[in-house]
Order: sequence, then C-alpha cells, then structure tokens
Amino acid sequence: MSAVTGVAAHRREEEPMKALVYHGPGEKSWETVADPKPMDPTDIVVQIDTTTICGTDLHILKGDVPTVEPGRILGHEAVGTVVAVGTAVSGLKVDDRVIVPAITSCGRCAYCKRGMPSHCQATGGIGWIFGHLIDGTQAEYARVPFAETSVHKVPDGVTDQQVLFLTDILPTGYEVGVRNGRVKPGDVVVVVGAGPVGLAAIQTAGLAGAATVVAVDVADSRLEHAVRFGADHVLNSAGGNVEELIASLTDDGLGADVAIEAVGIPETFDLCTRVVRPGGVVANIGVHGHPTTLHLEDLWINNVTITTGLVDGTTVPMLMKLVRSGKIAGDLFGTHEFALDDMLSAYDTFADAGANNALKVVIRR
Amino acid sequence: MSAVTGVAAHRREEEPMKALVYHGPGEKSWETVADPKPMDPTDIVVQIDTTTICGTDLHILKGDVPTVEPGRILGHEAVGTVVAVGTAVSGLKVDDRVIVPAITSCGRCAYCKRGMPSHCQATGGIGWIFGHLIDGTQAEYARVPFAETSVHKVPDGVTDQQVLFLTDILPTGYEVGVRNGRVKPGDVVVVVGAGPVGLAAIQTAGLAGAATVVAVDVADSRLEHAVRFGADHVLNSAGGNVEELIASLTDDGLGADVAIEAVGIPETFDLCTRVVRPGGVVANIGVHGHPTTLHLEDLWINNVTITTGLVDGTTVPMLMKLVRSGKIAGDLFGTHEFALDDMLSAYDTFADAGANNALKVVIRR
Amino acid sequence: MSAVTGVAAHRREEEPMKALVYHGPGEKSWETVADPKPMDPTDIVVQIDTTTICGTDLHILKGDVPTVEPGRILGHEAVGTVVAVGTAVSGLKVDDRVIVPAITSCGRCAYCKRGMPSHCQATGGIGWIFGHLIDGTQAEYARVPFAETSVHKVPDGVTDQQVLFLTDILPTGYEVGVRNGRVKPGDVVVVVGAGPVGLAAIQTAGLAGAATVVAVDVADSRLEHAVRFGADHVLNSAGGNVEELIASLTDDGLGADVAIEAVGIPETFDLCTRVVRPGGVVANIGVHGHPTTLHLEDLWINNVTITTGLVDGTTVPMLMKLVRSGKIAGDLFGTHEFALDDMLSAYDTFADAGANNALKVVIRR
Amino acid sequence: MSAVTGVAAHRREEEPMKALVYHGPGEKSWETVADPKPMDPTDIVVQIDTTTICGTDLHILKGDVPTVEPGRILGHEAVGTVVAVGTAVSGLKVDDRVIVPAITSCGRCAYCKRGMPSHCQATGGIGWIFGHLIDGTQAEYARVPFAETSVHKVPDGVTDQQVLFLTDILPTGYEVGVRNGRVKPGDVVVVVGAGPVGLAAIQTAGLAGAATVVAVDVADSRLEHAVRFGADHVLNSAGGNVEELIASLTDDGLGADVAIEAVGIPETFDLCTRVVRPGGVVANIGVHGHPTTLHLEDLWINNVTITTGLVDGTTVPMLMKLVRSGKIAGDLFGTHEFALDDMLSAYDTFADAGANNALKVVIRR
Repeated sequence: MSAVTGVAAHRREEEPMKALVYHGPGEKSWETVADPKPMDPTDIVVQIDTTTICGTDLHILKGDVPTVEPGRILGHEAVGTVVAVGTAVSGLKVDDRVIVPAITSCGRCAYCKRGMPSHCQATGGIGWIFGHLIDGTQAEYARVPFAETSVHKVPDGVTDQQVLFLTDILPTGYEVGVRNGRVKPGDVVVVVGAGPVGLAAIQTAGLAGAATVVAVDVADSRLEHAVRFGADHVLNSAGGNVEELIASLTDDGLGADVAIEAVGIPETFDLCTRVVRPGGVVANIGVHGHPTTLHLEDLWINNVTITTGLVDGTTVPMLMKLVRSGKIAGDLFGTHEFALDDMLSAYDTFADAGANNALKVVIRR
Repeated sequence: MSAVTGVAAHRREEEPMKALVYHGPGEKSWETVADPKPMDPTDIVVQIDTTTICGTDLHILKGDVPTVEPGRILGHEAVGTVVAVGTAVSGLKVDDRVIVPAITSCGRCAYCKRGMPSHCQATGGIGWIFGHLIDGTQAEYARVPFAETSVHKVPDGVTDQQVLFLTDILPTGYEVGVRNGRVKPGDVVVVVGAGPVGLAAIQTAGLAGAATVVAVDVADSRLEHAVRFGADHVLNSAGGNVEELIASLTDDGLGADVAIEAVGIPETFDLCTRVVRPGGVVANIGVHGHPTTLHLEDLWINNVTITTGLVDGTTVPMLMKLVRSGKIAGDLFGTHEFALDDMLSAYDTFADAGANNALKVVIRR
Repeated sequence: MSAVTGVAAHRREEEPMKALVYHGPGEKSWETVADPKPMDPTDIVVQIDTTTICGTDLHILKGDVPTVEPGRILGHEAVGTVVAVGTAVSGLKVDDRVIVPAITSCGRCAYCKRGMPSHCQATGGIGWIFGHLIDGTQAEYARVPFAETSVHKVPDGVTDQQVLFLTDILPTGYEVGVRNGRVKPGDVVVVVGAGPVGLAAIQTAGLAGAATVVAVDVADSRLEHAVRFGADHVLNSAGGNVEELIASLTDDGLGADVAIEAVGIPETFDLCTRVVRPGGVVANIGVHGHPTTLHLEDLWINNVTITTGLVDGTTVPMLMKLVRSGKIAGDLFGTHEFALDDMLSAYDTFADAGANNALKVVIRR
Repeated sequence: MSAVTGVAAHRREEEPMKALVYHGPGEKSWETVADPKPMDPTDIVVQIDTTTICGTDLHILKGDVPTVEPGRILGHEAVGTVVAVGTAVSGLKVDDRVIVPAITSCGRCAYCKRGMPSHCQATGGIGWIFGHLIDGTQAEYARVPFAETSVHKVPDGVTDQQVLFLTDILPTGYEVGVRNGRVKPGDVVVVVGAGPVGLAAIQTAGLAGAATVVAVDVADSRLEHAVRFGADHVLNSAGGNVEELIASLTDDGLGADVAIEAVGIPETFDLCTRVVRPGGVVANIGVHGHPTTLHLEDLWINNVTITTGLVDGTTVPMLMKLVRSGKIAGDLFGTHEFALDDMLSAYDTFADAGANNALKVVIRR
C-alpha cells in the first residue's frame, strides 16, 4: 500500500479487530469490523491501549447527534501505540506511544493556525471528527488523520491513565472554562455543575491563580468529588439561595469574578449570569440543546463577558507538563476500570454514573 | 466656605444661573437655579462652555430612568472652565480648561483601580452620576466631584468641539465596541446601528487595524454618515439578507470577526450573533430594555464571545492624543449649534434627529 | 489643625516618638523625634504595629542612594493602625488597621492611572518615597500621603506577619518577576538568586501555572529556603554548568521559558540571557549598580524579551486574597523577631543575614 | 517520481533554469542550474514570477553568514505560480498563484504551533531556510518545503508588487517592530532607521493606533521616504539632540512610548533605550553583529521592556487583507524594476541603494 511506510507487523492476530459500533438510536454492539489502514499520506494507525467513554457518546446513542451515521465506530479519546504511518509522516514512527485527542487539526487552515482547531476547515469546520464523522477510538485500532498536527507523543514515566483525560475533559475544563473565563490571580471562581468537565475546571482553576473555587451542584456525591478536585467551597443549589451564598463569599458582596457553566441547561446558564459581578465573565462549557433567555436589560450595563466554545486541545502539551511535574493529578478522573472486551459493561456503568458514583471509566487493552 | 480655596471671582453676574431641569416624565424647563458650590474637598465647580444632549437624556424625559428624580439638572457631557476648587484639589486651578466626562471616578475603589469606573463603588456602583444622581452639565455651572480623578485638562490648540465628544460617545464607541470587541488588525467589523455611538465605533475601528468596516442600518441617511465616518461598506438591512451579504464580504464566507450592536433591541442583537464567525466577538453597546433569546443551542459550539458594558472613559486621554495629532476628527459629530439659552430648541432638534438629519448638537455658552 | 478630622487621642504617652534615623553613610540611631501629623488633606498618620528592614535600607546606609538625605527616618514597609486622618479622607478612619506599602500612589497621574505608581508623577516620578524622600516606617508613627489611594485595609482574621511582606517583597517577586516574565501554565521558570525577593518569585510562580521552578544560587542555605518556598529543583551555580543543567530540565533541551534575575550583578543577568530559550523572557528584579554587556549578536535572532521594573503594588489586594484563602503562606519570610526598641539589633541580624540564616526580620511594637 | 502528483507541463523550455548562485565571499553569478523537483511529499515547486533582494543577501555576499555554503542559490522572497506538488499536498494545485515567504513553517513543532516558525524545529531551529540552508528564490523555479503550512495563496485582484513585500519586510516591520513593541492607541512611536524595514514599521504603526510616528535617520533621503510611508515627524540625528527633540514631542517630556531599532548597531540601540519613557518598550529589529552595553544601572528602575526577534510571517494573511482593502500600500517599497535575467544589475542597484535612492528592487520573470 503506497501510502504506508511502516508495516503493521506489530499485530500477530489473524482475525479482524473488534469495535463499538453505533447502529442508530439506542443500538450499539461490540463487533468484528475491518482493520483500519492509512488512507492519506498524513494518516497513522494506532493500536488503542486505553480509551474511555464521553457524555457525548451517550448523546449520540440517544440519537441527539444526527451527523453520526449508523455503522460508525464511536469514541474520541485514547492513548495508544503507532502501528502504521502514512508516506508523509516523518515525525512519528511505529511503536511511538501517543495521545489521540478529541480534536483533529489539519495544521494548515486559518482556524488551526490561530489555535482554534475546534473549527478546522479541512474537516468541514468541526475538529471533532473521531466517532462522529469518521470511525473512532472505542476499538482495537483506529486510523488517525492529520497525525503529526493532531497527536502528542507520551513521554516516558507517565501512565496511560495519567494522560488519558488530556484527550478531552482536562483541556475542555481548562480551555473553555478557565481560560475562556479569563480566571486571574485572586479570583473567586464558581463552577456550576460538578460532573467530569466541571471537575476539570475546578482542578485547573489554580493554574490561573484562583483564590477561591466554589462548586455548585444538586448532588452531594458530585460535590464530594469537587472537594477532592480542589474546590474550596461547595454549595448544593437545592438548599438555599445560591446567589446570596456566593455573594457572601466575596469581599464586597458583588459576586464571583468568573462563573463557569458546566451543565448545559437554561437554568444553570441563567444562574451564572446572576452570580457574576460587574466586570466578570460567564464561561459556558455546557452543551445546550435549547435557547435561553438572556436578560440584556440587566446585563447590558454590567460589563459582563459571556464565552462559548469547544475544546481546541492546544493546551494538551502544556497540561502534560503539569501532569509530569506532579501539579495536576490527571488520573483522578478514573473511577472504574474495564477491559476493551467489556466495552458494553463500561457503557452500562458510565450511563448510570450517578448510581455508580462514577466519573470516568478507564478501558484498557 | 472652608472647602474652597479658589474664589469664583470669575463670574460677575449677580443673578443665579440657569439650567435644564427635569420635572418628571415629559416635563422639563430652562430655569433659574442656585449656583453650585464645592461641597467636598475633592470637588471643583466648572463653568460650562460647551455641552450637548445624549440619547439617554431623551430616555430620562420619557420616564425610562426612574433613578432620576424630578428637580434634577440633566446632562453629562461638557467642556468647561474651572471657577472654584475644593481644599484637597492640588492639580487643577481656577481658569483651567477641562473636559467633564460622563463617568466620574473616585480613583480609590477596586473598580476605579482596575480601570472600570463605570462601576465606581464610591457612587453606588455606577460611575454615571451627572444628570442622573447629581445635577448635570446642561447648565451655566456644574459641581464636579472627585475632580482630579475624573476630569481631563484640555491642551492648547484644540477647540471645544474637537474634544466635546470625548466626554461620552467617542470612548463609548471605542471602549464598549472596538476594545470589548477585541478588534484586531485585518478584521472585518460589522457595526449594526449607525447612530452617533455606532458612528463612533466606525470611526475608531481603524485604531485597532480593522481591514473592513461594514455599517448596517435601516436609514439611508445614517448610512451616508457612516461613509463619512469611515465605513468601507454600508448595508440597508431593510433590503436583503444581511447575513448573506456580510458573509460574502469575508474571504471564507464564514462571517464577520466582530459584530458591534449599537441599537439596543433584541432583533439587532440576534442579528449580531448570526453574522459573526466562529471564534468571533459580539460587542453590545446598545441600551436594552428587554430580554432577548440567546440561541445557545447554536452558539455553544461556536467559540463566540459576547460582551456588554458601559463606557469607563479611561481612554479619553488616549483619544485626545489622536484628536490632537489629527488622526480622529472629533468634531465630525456636531451637526447643529445652539446657544445655552436655546437649550429647549436644541432638545427639539435632537429629539427629532431623523427629520433634521442631526447627529449631535453643540450647545455653547 | 485644620487638615485633620480625626484626633490622635489614641496615644497616651506624653513624650515624642522614637525612630531609626539615617545620619549619613554608616551612621544611624534609634532616637527621639517629633511626632508626625497630617500635612495635606489626603494624609493619614499611622501607628506602626509591625515593620521590617529591606535590603535597600542597607544600601542607603552604605551611602549608595544619594537621594536619601541625613536626618531621614528609614523604612518603607509596615502594618499599622490609623491614628489621624486628613480632611479629605473619607474611606479610612481612626483605628482602621492598614498595610502601608513601599509604593505611594497619587491615583491621579497618568502613571498611577495605568497601574504603574512606581513612576507616580506627583512624587517626582518615583513612587518609592517612604524612607527615601519623606520619613519612613521604622518608627512609632508615620505620616502617609495619598492615603486612600495607597494603603490597604487589613481584613479580620489575618495576622500582621501574614500581610507584612505584602508591602514590598511579595508583590516585587510577583509583579517584577512572575508577571513581567509572563510566566504561563506549563512553563519552566528559573529564578537566579534565592534571597527574599527571589523566594517571593518562587512562591508566586505557581499563580501563573509554572510546571517547574528551578532556583539557582551560590549558597546552599538559600537553596534550602528555596525548597521551602516551592522550588522543584535547586542548582548551586558554583558546582557545574548551569546552562547545561537547566537545558536538561526542559523537554527539548532549549532552555527555560522564563529566567528571573534576583541578584543585581552583570554575571547573573548574563546567565539569565543564556539559560532562556528562543521566545523566552528574562525578567530582571535585581537592583543594578553597573552596566552589563548585552550579547545582541546572539540575542537579536532569539525572540527574547527582557523586562525591568520596580514594584507597583497594584497586586497587593489580589495577593491578600490568596493569603486569606491560604494559598500563599505570607508569613514564611519572617525568620527573626524584634521589638521596635531593639531596632538596632534587628539591623545587626539582617545585615549579616547569611551568618544568621535570616530572611526577613519582623519588628513589632 | 512518486512524491509528485502534479506534472510540470507548465514549462515549455527545454533547457535548464537560471539562478543567482553564491560562490563564496564576494562571488556570485547568474548561471544555469538543474531544475528543482519536489523531494518530500509536502513539497511544491514554484515558478518565480516576481522576486526581490534583501539586505541579508548582501551580508551573505560579504561572507557574514557562514551557514550559507558556496553553490547556494540566494533569495527568500517571491511571488510565483505552482508548477508541481508533492503527494501529500491537497490544498494547493498547479497554477495556483502563491506568496513564498522568507520563513518556512513545518506546522508541527512546538514553535510553529505557538506561532513562532522563526524557530521551527523541523529545520534546525531557524525558519529562514531559503537562500540560506536550501536553494532560494532568485531563480526561475524554486522548491518549497512544508508548502501547505508555509505559502499563501494570492487572491484575485492584487498585483505581484502589492504582495511581494509581504514575504519579508512588511511582516518584519509589523511583527518585530510594532507588535513586539506593543504599540497601543495614542502612542508616540520612534523608529530609528528609515531603511526598508524601518519604513515597514512606520507604515504599519497605524494598525495599532499610534498617534505620532517619529522617524530618525542620518540621511535626509531616507527621511523623505519616511514621510511618504506615514511618519508624522522626521529627525536627522546628525543635527541635534535627538533625546531632547523626542521628549519635546511628548505631553509630559518623558519620552516615547515605543522605540523601534531598525539599524543594528550599538549606538542606535542605546539611543532607543534613552528616548523611551518609563514603562515603554524598545523593540529591536536590527541585525546585530556586536554586543552592546546595556545601562542596567539606569534601566532596572524604568520598567522598560526590550524585545528581539526574527519575523514569523504569521501576520501575512492579515496584512494581505489590509493590502486588499487598500489600507496598506504594499507596492510602495518598489522603486526599481528589473527582469530576472538582469539579476546582476538589480544587485548593483540595490547594493548602492543610497546613491540610487532605492528602497527595494522588483525583479520580474
């Protein structure tokens, strides 16, 4: 095959690989499919050593993401080993251990060049293609396009679990929450929603010098996780006036410097606009399915900034340095472990995360 | 009077001064009132040499701003001459020519120190107090609190009219539109609404290196002004699909880099969120009286930033330098002139700006 | 006295106060001097509860700072209690507990307004006036000009020692080292010189997300302190090739992202320019008495930024929030305690800091 | 040849191409050489339609750049037409008209990803490879590596001459002068040296809102060009105290906000450090062959930032937008025209630019 310089000698098995395939709303199976091969000169193929499941995968299975067609292998987060490289790949070689992140970057378009591959023009204006527009990482092998501008080599001395969550939730919490929220030293930061992505924002708010991180959720179990991830205060929004409580945590009673929305419903977005002080920032991470009412009659005068966004993953190398130097405990998100062949059990556990007190599942070869 | 070191010998007239007084919704008069005097050690009193009328004054007269009480002298924009200074004022003296800007800054609170006197805590969290919470500048004299941290000396060689609009609309267009919108070199900037504040955004977008400035309005007369103020393209939104037209002005058809809302109604705000590209900014300047629907189901993924705000006036010294060096034609906004005693005629003309093709009125002593 | 509204009833003693007075190079005494009183309407007088000695005071005593005239009371760092306020002071009152920082800010000049009171124009272009151009804080009482724009109220629940070092070294290390150095998440930061100011940079580098902080010094005792303040690696520059060792601590061997100079001699400045990678920053904190050779023939191509500066103190409120929330151990600098009356002993100990393993002395009323 | 998908049918001539070849210090010739072909899958080959000569080429000919080996084709600036593309090139095709900029970017290394291809690690840590480490653009054809991440398509409606100077001097003046100098609205900007690169800084200072641009040079002829390129004031440094004259152009007599060094000798660099105000920036563009004395004993206290750097070219697409919208007159640098076959005459004219009042030569196919 002319586009491949490396040979996938790596793999001894004779039979084709298995993968988690979406067959339309509510339908999935762990089944045998053809092995992937490099198609373009800039592709690589990766053996999946460790992968996980994202909340987005559950949305796809509900039929909420119509751009995912039946027959698609799901998954967009993995740590793996290179088994084949395309003819134009010079900086990666067979046996390299790599992170395959959620976002693919062509490296050439105006969005990639400005550090916003979430809107990569080479892939139709959306950098999230794994398990969406092309086959994904919940499989024994996966083809990775634009490899040299997308994957990251894993340095020696770190485990798969330490870097697995750099593929998506850690940079999401940091980039879309903390960085978009322009958290600055001394800030009071409120994170509404203490699911995995909210926890990632909580865990990385200190990178920007936050003085006080407040987690808000309706579930005490998630608030307990929030404390583990570094929240200074937790508030169960079911029990009391969140606005007043947050105001009371600030010097002047004017509210939080930054409010990070990590739920994705109108009520929590609106709460964020009410707990933030004049001059503050509301950083939306939540995936919204419905419009919300924006109270511009109050907000127009308040010097408030509202941001939205999808992860770019441009901070993955930076976050990896902090994982290596021990300043981010990247493995903390993994609460349950499964083998690849137990993929369906992993889905069951993750789909009922509340009952299982699960954050993220770690699925290993 | 112990708080005054300067003596208002400046003024020979025996009779008290005249001023434009608000007497409740729909009621105003040009009447005799007591002369102002310094009350606090940091006050000055200024003889009003040139003033103007703001759209906000018309809102007050409609009763839309209930915090303005009957009996209040209106106006928050003036160029004048110092006639008395409080005991703690050391950097200003009688006969100094000064700009009295819309926003007062105590210079001491956390908001003033971070460059956001629009939310000055010394004046109740709102830096706009002239013609609002204290008597204003549509008068022969006005008391100016926190003088040394609020007013700006006028350098020699510039006329009153050149700097009059530095009191409010020029910094509003620049700070709340261009700067909040983070306009950067090469950008396509759309300004929706070509009234005075929109024109100020158009006029200052070049300071940030905008490549193309597009003005959108429903009135051709305002679009003609937009061209005078530097718009590269004008679009009458009554005649065609604005979204498509703007997309066609961009290289990749993805929309404007920055959309500046300078009207203040839900429709124009929504338009701004639709014409802006992924990764772009919607900067709201408009004064909104109603909530709007925010299409988070589309925007969450678009890396869009939305900003709101009130002018701070921190850029007045900078804008003055550009007026002096000839790079901003500050006087361009003045379309009609009146004497102070013709204040009521000035209001009539400005209130019917469309029919009179008026931008701003210049009212001189 | 007309400029004073508060009465200094606070003080029962009949006799005048004592202070540390400079009498020319090599000469100082702890002697009786006249009590200070408010002179200008914006002044306050503060009873000194806790003060300290700065390396600069030692320079003054050597005669290195000719702008300090004999008869001057030294000291520019204190925590105290307000005992009198000028007539224009409205936001501070007798008995308020305040930090008196090294830098005074008029709040009115262009430099103060841009957040650079280190160059306050009201005090001749240099914001450091205590113990320099006016009498300082190594005394029982001190007059504080421009009080409302200069001092900071101390919140309940923090000790004097926790906030004492916010007057100078903590903001110096943060502002002039970490902030000027534009430390960003994931960075390798080298701090050359582990005296008090270098330690302050080490302690605050994490506010900007540094992944790895490397301390370099010739004294192992200071390197031990560096570890206490949070250094990840320490290098004794006497023993080995510092350039190579630092390069080996970076992923690609290209050097540190930021090098902070905290010594003040040509050799250490030059070292900083050699250990920094292309695109990196050298932030100079050191007080230099001599020119250095700048190797522009190497540096011109290296995209290197070099910064200098004096502390502004604008980050004191922010740092205080971090002290309160427990994220900065502000009291860690204090190694030796003295009573005010033992001022001369305090000087002896501090002047021989190496032999005494002293960082900063805490001198209490 | 397997790495080429496009066929160079474009070219009818049978004989090999001609090029300007360096044969060691002082030796060059316009001679016949082998045609270039794509070597790597990401290469393209470009027919040179328009090229120019850089001051660096003259340095090479003097033997000042030992990394250039005899036999090397010189030149690193061109507008051309694609005649062949490598197998991995998907976004460019034969007949596309492109800018070939001075800096090549692999798009994959950490420096390219952070927008600093001047230090591209794929090419040994220096992004300038054309006419340096590989054959250049003063030829009929040139091979261009990393094509998709390096070249820029030329839009319809602009001439070669309008975009030719986007290859090097315009982004150099903007990025290394104006952007590194952090020019902000209202600034007084001094540009020392009014050669082509200094003129590029002068021409682009307005993109950042400079209020006043001052050109300093020893040659009146260059100062005349400076006026054409937009300087507000010109100073011949031979005739008077430049420091005093610049101070007199600022409001407070404290000096320029930004000083841009565009000469490359110790004297002019030192001048820049003396004319800049406290808190200002010295942006070095000049290529220095010798160290300079840095007066840290004065500068340490002045909050001065000094930057160095090589052009990255990341702003080329932005500058192209401004050329297209008519806001930058990109063609203004071209003062003399030559045919490719008159390359040696072009060198003669450019080498004696002063006598010929030449800025840049335009050399066309």
